[in-house]
Order: sequence, then C-alpha cells, then structure tokens
Amino acid sequence: MTVDRHALQRVLDGRWAQVRNEIRAQMDELAFNPDPDLTTEEYRALTTENLKLLASTGRPRQGFDPAYGGGGDVGGVVTAFAMLGFGDLSLLVKAGVQWGLFGGAVQVLGTKHHHDAYLRQIMDGELLGCFAMTETGHGSDVQHLRTTATYDPETREFVVHTPDPGARKDYIGNAARDGRMAVVFAQLVTQGRSHGVHALLVPIRDEDGNPMPGVTIGDCGHKAGLNGVDNGRLTFDHVRVPREALLNRFGDVSEDGTYTSSIANETRRFFTMLGTLVRGRISVAGGACTATQKALALAIRYGAIRRQFADPATGEEVVVLDYLVHQRKLLPALATTYALHFAQADLVSDMHDLQTPGAEGDEWRQRELETRAAGIKAVATWHATATIQTCREACGGAGYLSANLLPALKADTDVFTTFEGDNTVLLQLVAKTLLSDYGRRVARLSPVGKAKFAADLVADAVVERTGARALLRRGDVTDREYQRWLLVERERHLLANAAQRMRKALAPGADQFGIFNGAQDHLIAAARAHVDRIVFDSFAAAVDRTTDAGVRDLLAEVLRLYALTVIENDRAFFIEHSYLTPGRAKTVTQAVNALCGRLRPHARTLVDGFGIPERWLECPLLEGEKEQPAAPPAPSQDDEPSDLASVG
Amino acid sequence: MTVDRHALQRVLDGRWAQVRNEIRAQMDELAFNPDPDLTTEEYRALTTENLKLLASTGRPRQGFDPAYGGGGDVGGVVTAFAMLGFGDLSLLVKAGVQWGLFGGAVQVLGTKHHHDAYLRQIMDGELLGCFAMTETGHGSDVQHLRTTATYDPETREFVVHTPDPGARKDYIGNAARDGRMAVVFAQLVTQGRSHGVHALLVPIRDEDGNPMPGVTIGDCGHKAGLNGVDNGRLTFDHVRVPREALLNRFGDVSEDGTYTSSIANETRRFFTMLGTLVRGRISVAGGACTATQKALALAIRYGAIRRQFADPATGEEVVVLDYLVHQRKLLPALATTYALHFAQADLVSDMHDLQTPGAEGDEWRQRELETRAAGIKAVATWHATATIQTCREACGGAGYLSANLLPALKADTDVFTTFEGDNTVLLQLVAKTLLSDYGRRVARLSPVGKAKFAADLVADAVVERTGARALLRRGDVTDREYQRWLLVERERHLLANAAQRMRKALAPGADQFGIFNGAQDHLIAAARAHVDRIVFDSFAAAVDRTTDAGVRDLLAEVLRLYALTVIENDRAFFIEHSYLTPGRAKTVTQAVNALCGRLRPHARTLVDGFGIPERWLECPLLEGEKEQPAAPPAPSQDDEPSDLASVG
Repeated sequence: MTVDRHALQRVLDGRWAQVRNEIRAQMDELAFNPDPDLTTEEYRALTTENLKLLASTGRPRQGFDPAYGGGGDVGGVVTAFAMLGFGDLSLLVKAGVQWGLFGGAVQVLGTKHHHDAYLRQIMDGELLGCFAMTETGHGSDVQHLRTTATYDPETREFVVHTPDPGARKDYIGNAARDGRMAVVFAQLVTQGRSHGVHALLVPIRDEDGNPMPGVTIGDCGHKAGLNGVDNGRLTFDHVRVPREALLNRFGDVSEDGTYTSSIANETRRFFTMLGTLVRGRISVAGGACTATQKALALAIRYGAIRRQFADPATGEEVVVLDYLVHQRKLLPALATTYALHFAQADLVSDMHDLQTPGAEGDEWRQRELETRAAGIKAVATWHATATIQTCREACGGAGYLSANLLPALKADTDVFTTFEGDNTVLLQLVAKTLLSDYGRRVARLSPVGKAKFAADLVADAVVERTGARALLRRGDVTDREYQRWLLVERERHLLANAAQRMRKALAPGADQFGIFNGAQDHLIAAARAHVDRIVFDSFAAAVDRTTDAGVRDLLAEVLRLYALTVIENDRAFFIEHSYLTPGRAKTVTQAVNALCGRLRPHARTLVDGFGIPERWLECPLLEGEKEQPAAPPAPSQDDEPSDLASVG
Repeated sequence: MTVDRHALQRVLDGRWAQVRNEIRAQMDELAFNPDPDLTTEEYRALTTENLKLLASTGRPRQGFDPAYGGGGDVGGVVTAFAMLGFGDLSLLVKAGVQWGLFGGAVQVLGTKHHHDAYLRQIMDGELLGCFAMTETGHGSDVQHLRTTATYDPETREFVVHTPDPGARKDYIGNAARDGRMAVVFAQLVTQGRSHGVHALLVPIRDEDGNPMPGVTIGDCGHKAGLNGVDNGRLTFDHVRVPREALLNRFGDVSEDGTYTSSIANETRRFFTMLGTLVRGRISVAGGACTATQKALALAIRYGAIRRQFADPATGEEVVVLDYLVHQRKLLPALATTYALHFAQADLVSDMHDLQTPGAEGDEWRQRELETRAAGIKAVATWHATATIQTCREACGGAGYLSANLLPALKADTDVFTTFEGDNTVLLQLVAKTLLSDYGRRVARLSPVGKAKFAADLVADAVVERTGARALLRRGDVTDREYQRWLLVERERHLLANAAQRMRKALAPGADQFGIFNGAQDHLIAAARAHVDRIVFDSFAAAVDRTTDAGVRDLLAEVLRLYALTVIENDRAFFIEHSYLTPGRAKTVTQAVNALCGRLRPHARTLVDGFGIPERWLECPLLEGEKEQPAAPPAPSQDDEPSDLASVG
C-alpha cells in the first residue's frame, strides 16, 4: 500500500480545500508562538494585535451577509476558524468571540437596523464586542438567567439590570479589556409580564475605554490557559438603552410596550434563538479537532525518532513507536481523530447549506443539525483533552516543556469541554431529542404496528437473556458491515431501554426527578452511542467517495481501527447484551493490536495528511528528525540473562 | 450512620499523625498561592525563598542520619513531604530534588567521607544540589546513559565528560539557577574497562554562582507547570573531580585504578543503587495523593453548593452533586483516592521499617518494596491526572480560573506520570518482577507438583471456555470476599497467561523482541491487576483495624465502591474469562449507582477527613458556602410539557 500524502491531504481538505490553503498561506504571516513568560496583560495586547491583523486579511468578512460586504461563505469561515487551531488558541477563541458569537448574534438575532449600524464595523474589527450570556449563577441552564431588561414606555428604553450577585455576567470574552459593546441576554419584561430571555446590544465602554455609567466591569484574571483572551464580568445597575437595542428578529416590543413574536411558545422561542447560534458550538468542535491533529503530529513524529531500550537480538535501540503500548496510546486516538474530522466536515457542510443567506429554512433539518452539533462538540472536545494529554505523556519530559508546544495545546483546549455548553449537559440534550423523536415514531405507528413493536421488545429481551443474539449474527469484528451492525444495535438498544425507563415518569404521582436521575448515565450512554454511529457513517461515506485507491485503502484501515476502538472500549456492553460472545469480544483486542501494527508504517503519512504548515510544528522536540542517529547503547559487560520467561 | 470527621481524620492520618499535625501548623507560616502572573524568574526566586524557609523549620533534617543531626524518621519525612502537596507543588518538587534526590543520593550512595563533608549543609539548605541522572537521549533506559567518568591514575581524578549531544543531562531540577553541586550519573571507566553507571559529586557552580570550568549550564525554560523549579541542562567537557568524588558505597576505585565492588554483577549492582533511591518514587506517589485529595475537596464542596436546573416537582434548583452523573464523576474517584491513601501509607510505613538507619537489610523485602513503589507510583499519578482533570470539568468555567486553584494542581502534577520513572515503563518493571517470581515459584515445585500445575492450567482453560467458572462461584458483587476473589483471580489469570506467552521467547531462534512486544499490553494489564489487588488489601486492612464503628462502616462502603469501580472498569475482562456472567456484570453498574447515592450524604465528611488546612482551600469557588441561597429559578410562563417520555 503506497499512499501519496498530498492525495490524502486533498481528501481531508474536502469541500473547503481552497480556504484551507489560503489560511495555510496567511498563517505564515500571522505566525507566532507567544512567549510563555508574557504577563497576562502583554499576552492580551498581543492577541488583540493579532486579531486586528486577522481582520485586515478580510477573512472574517467571509462569514457575513454579502449585502454588507460579507462573503456569505458560512462553511468557509468556520473551516478557516478551525485552521487557527494549528496556531495560537487564544487568537482562535478571541476571533470566535468577536465574529462568531458577538458578530454572529448581531447577524442572526438582529434585523436590518442592527446590520446597517454595526455589521461593517464588527467585520473589520473596529467594534469589538462581547457575548454576555453566561451568569455566575447560571451557565448551563441559560433559560433561567436572571439579568432583566424591563421596558419603560415613558422613555422608550429598556432598563438592563443585574438584580443579584448570581446574575452577574461571568467568563465573558472581550469584556475585561477590549469590548465596547455587548450582546446581553436578559429576561425581557414589558407591561408587567416576562417573555423569557432575549438579547440586547448594550454599550459597555466609551470611546476612551472607560466603563459606561451603570456598568461595572470585572476581570476573571489568570486562567489555566487562553490567557490572551480577556475574560471578564459585567454587572448592570439600571442601565438604559433605547428600544432599538433589542435584537428583535424573534421578538419585539412596540413603542407602547406591546410584545410580539412570530413564535408564541416562550421555551420554543428561546431555543429557536439559541439554535441560530449553533455556529459557535460547531466552531469549538472544529478547533478541538485541529488542536488534536497538531498534538498527534508532534507525538507521532517524535515517537518515530525517539529511541529507548535495545532489541536484545540486534543490540540496536528501538524507536518507541514500534512498541505496542506506544502504538496503543497514539494510533487508536489517531483513528478517532480521522473519524471526527470527517464527521465535523459533514456538519460544517450541512450547516453551510442550511445557513447560507437565502437558503430555505427547514425546522427538522435545523433541529437535526443542532443535535448533531451538540453531540459532536461533546465527543470531539473530550477526545481533544484526552488525546493531547496522552500526547504530552508520550513525549515524556520533553512534552512538558513549553517550547515543545504541547503544554499550550493542553491548557488552552481544556475549557472546550465545558464552554459553549458543558459536554455532559449537551449529551443530555442529544438524548432528549433522540427520545422525543423515538416517541414520535412510535406514536405514529398503527395499532397493529404498536402491538408488533411491543412484541419485538419482549422478543428482544428474551433473545438477550438467552444469549442467542450473539449466535444468531456471527461475523468478523474487522468487517465494516458487522462493525456498523454493532454500533447501530447498541444505539437502538440503549435508546429503546431509555425510552422504557423514562416512560415510568408519566405515571401519576411519579417521582419525575428520581426517574430521570436514576437513568441519567443511561441517557448519556445512549447519546454517545448515537454520536459514535453518526461519526462512523461520516467516515465510511468519506472512504467510499475517495477515488485514489491507495488513499481509500489506507482510510478503510483507519476506519476499521476507529470502529474497533469504539467497540473495544464498550465491549462489556456488547457482551452483557449478547451482541458479542465473550470469545468474539477477545478477538476485538487482538484485532486492535494487529491493526496498530499494520498502520504503524503509515503513521507519519497519516499525520502529514492533516496539512499542518511545517512552520507551526517547528520545535526542539522534532529537531532529531534532522539527524536520526542510530544510537546503539553501550552493551553491559555481563548482562544477567533475562529471567522474564523462566517458567517450568 | 453518623461519622465524626475528626475520628475519620485520625484513621487517615495513621502512623505519622503527629507529623501531619505539625506540618498543618507549619504550613500556615509557609502559606502562599503564588501569583500566576509571576515571571518564571520571579517564581523561581520565590520558591527558593520558601525552600530556605522550609529548611529553617528543621523539618528536612528529620529524614537524615541521626549521626549528622538528622531525625532518622524516614517515614515521617516522606509523610511531611506529601503534605506539601496541599500547598504549592513547585515547593514540593524543589524540596524533593534537594533533600530526597540530591541529599538522598549522598546519604545512601555515599560513605562517611561524603556524609562528613556535605550532609549538614545539605540538610540546612546551605548547599543546593542536583540529581543529574536523566539525559536527553536516555530517560527511561538509564542503564545506558552515555556520560562517562574515566579514572586517571596519574592525577587520581575522574574525568567527567559528555561525549555527544544526546548525553547532555536534561530536565535537571535545581540546575538552571540554584544548584552548586550535582550528583552526576555516568559510566565509570577505569583501566580501560567500563563498570556501568555510578554516581559522582561534581561542583557545577562556584561561590559566585558562575558555572565551573568545563561545565555548560542550559535552561529548560518555561514548562507546563512547576515553574518555580529551575530545570536545566548540564554538559561536561572533560571536567576533573578528585577520586573521592565517587559516591562509593557500592563500587570504588583505588588510587591505582583498580575497581572493587561488593556486587559482582554489573546489572545487579546498578539496580541495587537505583533501589536505594526508592524514596523519590514513593514521595512522588505521596504528592500525587495529596494533590488529588485537594482537587476532590474543592470539586465536591463546590458540587454541594452549586445549583443548576430545577426539579420539576418542587421548582427548586438542584444541587449538582445530587445528579447521578456528577456523583459518578466524583465519588468513584474519591473512593479510589481513599484506597490509594491507605496503600501509600502502608508503603511509607514498610519503607520506614526497612530503611531506618540500623534496620536489618533484607533483599527480598527491598525488592518487594521497590516493585510496590513502582506500581503505586504509576497508578497514583495516573489517577491524579485523571481525577484533577475531572474535578476541573466538574467546576465548569470556575474551575478554569487560576484563582480557584485547580489549574495549578492540574498543570503541576501533569509531569508526575512521566518523571521518577515513566508510568508505562514502571508497570513493565512490575510485570517483569512478578513474572520472575512466578517462574521461581513454579521452578521450585516437585515433579508431581509441576504435573499438577500443568494440569490445572489446562483445566482452567476448559472451565473458562465452557463458561462454567462464573456458575461455579456465584456471589454478590457488593460482598467484600467476592470482590477480592475477582481481583485475585484476575491478577492470577493475567500473570499465568503472560508467563505462558513469554515462555515462547525461550525457544531457540525465537523472536524475543516480537514476543515481548506482542504481549506488552498484556504485561501492563497484569501489573495493573496486581497493583489494584494490593491497594484493595491495604484498604481492607485499614477498615478492619478501625475501632470507631461509624468510621469503620463508612470506610467499608468506600472500600466497596473502590472495588466495584475497578471491577466495573474492567468488567469485559471478567466476562470474557468467565469470572462473571453477563447478567451479574450488569449488577455491577447498578451497584455503583446505588453506592454513589448512599455515599452522597457523606461526601463532605469524606473530603473533610483529609484534614486539609482550610486556609489552603480558600478561593472564590467556595465563597458560596457562606451564603447558600435557595435560588429558585423564575419559572417560564408557558413551559412546553416535556416530551421526554412520550413513548407508546
């Protein structure tokens, strides 16, 4: 199997290859590895400079409405954003706050008035802003934020107010230093009635950078990472903004205070607003993917030159990536990274088709996109945290030095698992959507269909109890169809069982919280199983559409390892529910080991395929690539015979 | 079950309760949370100041030989060292370098001459030094270091030399800024023959702090964490030191260049030298344990006050630690932390009894101690990394702020998994020792015994294949004896199988490396299973010797959760090898959930039991403990009915 790394890169680059290549060229200008000894203030200033430089490339415009000079290329801008993950992640996050969250909210929650007034300045980075949703007391449960925006018909103004310390806006990017304006999420109150959370544009600093009257700005200070981003806190003391400050696409207040909305149900309205902001979540997943790729490129290339311990037969020191346990640490993670890359690319592509200005809206597709975005964000960011950690450890002491780039990757991406939606909460959302879709499907069945459905559940339980299922469907665990069957069945099984458990909550007087809580781990497992399966499907589709035979064969092997990794990690489930016999489960582990060995010679090609500009990987860790000394150890004069195997 | 936290703390404090209490008092004086915005140089200077302050308490003396004014309390000083893990970990590591590694090497590898000349200055922190073992090219395989120390009988000196860039001493604590002297490990050459690695005392800086002639000192620069420690690099260009610089307890060179040693075999001699340094490894495990305890105290106390999402029945927001998935994140980790605490305490206690000056040496006990230290170090440091990460995530955005202490805990302990022995390499060492002990046991059997042994292996395979084993031994997965049976059988099984596989390497012409490498993951699994079992035994013994009934009952529940956690994580193994039926395996997960619920009310008591001085936990994260607002959310006016359970 010979594989051309450029052909592989083209497959990975996919639909926005052009954008990726432009960013690769532009990043060369932006390039910097911030000195880790910068103070927080110096690093923030540097990041702001880089943000302006980025604005001057015109790249951020590409995501906005062409009517205001934007490029309308939603998918391209999200792809470009993710590419910043190869560089400094503070810049990535600061750009995400400015153009994704702040600019994105103005674009999708605002109307012509707001677009006319602000979009151009936002695109060009002249007006820096914040996305002030999270409060100290409410991070995940944002429907219950406590900041209020009360309409005063006398003056035709909204009064934005922080009623208690828990309602303080917290962890807000761009707040501590640079932001002039904030999109503030608050409970909208008019004519004595609350209409749920809405967003308003509130100036927070004047021209000279001083806080506006009534606005108190705090600083979150030093963080575990991302110290180029100025996270801060905002407190409002009866701050007045004009009626037009309301981003009024989904709900408006007339001059006399009458509230109107195209969406009558308050909860549905709120989640529709949130849904339009899905781009942020997709962008975080993209950043997590590229950061993971960079960490793997470093660790795998180092593993291919680092030698330790001699082969007793040759006396020559062994390259550490030739050790099975080292392969086991890195190659399944690499396979999963490939799988997530393609799943993320599909997500971006579908979002582009759905959100491109002028595209036809479709509630079902939007809902599916949001669910998928939530699931992939959770899985991709946890994968990033775990994999970057593994890469650091795989590089030993060298991986701990800031000069070798891994420490910043680790520290900066750490918060990805809890921002833009806490991962556990996101997976719960995914489970909730899956369950209600499931419920609707069942509800639509005819009476006969319902009876058959119930009978099938009983039969399923029987076949599981007797262990017959695993005998009914035999297969080779390395076979793609068999692998998919396992992933599909796991998803179906967990979902059906979760639905049965949650059904009890409908009984009169049921302890709803108790039932939900007792099944919470089960719900999360169902959501994960769903995400694993859709990620598999994205990857499989990518393999099938690959025309270069060498690349296709290699990707098929990587897909195989990805699926085996998922199955191996949860093989207890498959045995417990009789999808695998204990004997066949053991072959999974053997197959993973064998595949690691088969992919080892392609490890370098696989990380080269990510197309990370070489300049962004330059560090002392990889200096050895230039020399590659054979480095045979001085053999001891009288080595003890190894007593490793002295049995019997 | 009512439990007195002080009674619980007394059980955890154990044999060195007195020392722990003294340190708790002393730490109040030392107390500081370094400003995260200090430059590397400022932080190093501060840590050096703190080191001197620590020396002035006289505490570090306690570990040294009473003949030189030390306290001879080996266990006490290691306990005290670990307590520093509640504070700033840079100070912990710097103290470990100075007194554990540098001072420890002089004490155990040197002889009277070295003790007379240096011990007092080292104890008092007047002479700061380095432990220069690791080289750029050799970290794990330290037997093949390449620095040389060649004896010159003409001048009666050793010539210490770095022959190539890979032989540079790297990551050496105290080297970049403070160290005046280094214990340098080098291949000893005399009369044209190499005798393997030995240690020599080499001055690296003069009185004014300038490098000595021939010594080049580099700086490792900024790291992921531990930036108060000045890690650096040492290169020697034919540096001459007197013959007496050799730490000559295990090997010496006479004036004429004749080499003598009480241990003829070079490999055995080297590992004997290394073995005396076991204290460092034990100390790292201790630091990992206390750091984990601190992280759990923060996350569990925050989880007990942080509210998010309302209970639909009451409308009141739920404390996040009441959610099953939150308990699942923190409580099994807490149980494992308890288990490791007791295993570590036993390790320290046994080391004390073995190493106290004047104690009778015993090769077998020393070897068992080294093996146990290696295993517990690996398991405890991986547990620390994973648990502190989980704690950070469990605190959301607040956990990412440096002010809330978790970022430093995470960053500082990260390197623990790879320093003082890479964890994977350490577990391999454990496996190797277990295998050779196993081989010796089998070899000692009579011919009849050997035949029976072989027959048992065959019977074992049959009983596994038929699945009969799980039916032969039924039990309740929450029963301690049954849990122990599972842990013991797993260890036995993995070891026996590993031995069978490695036996093939003895065949003539066998591909030794291939056989070893193919079984490497199996060997690591066997080592882990061994460590899990001995940790269980330590914890169980601690439960049994507890006299306070309330504390004992609570600890028994925690032990139960620890065992269940181990079994749950590896339940695929137990089913695959027919130790559990699939049906009984499912009850493991149910039992973990049930135990989490039962331990929830005791979570605060359990973290209070660690006895972490309150002052060291003070941070904004826990400020809410003072207020505890009820915080009911504003209910939406027209919430959609949940369609979570709308099945059928």
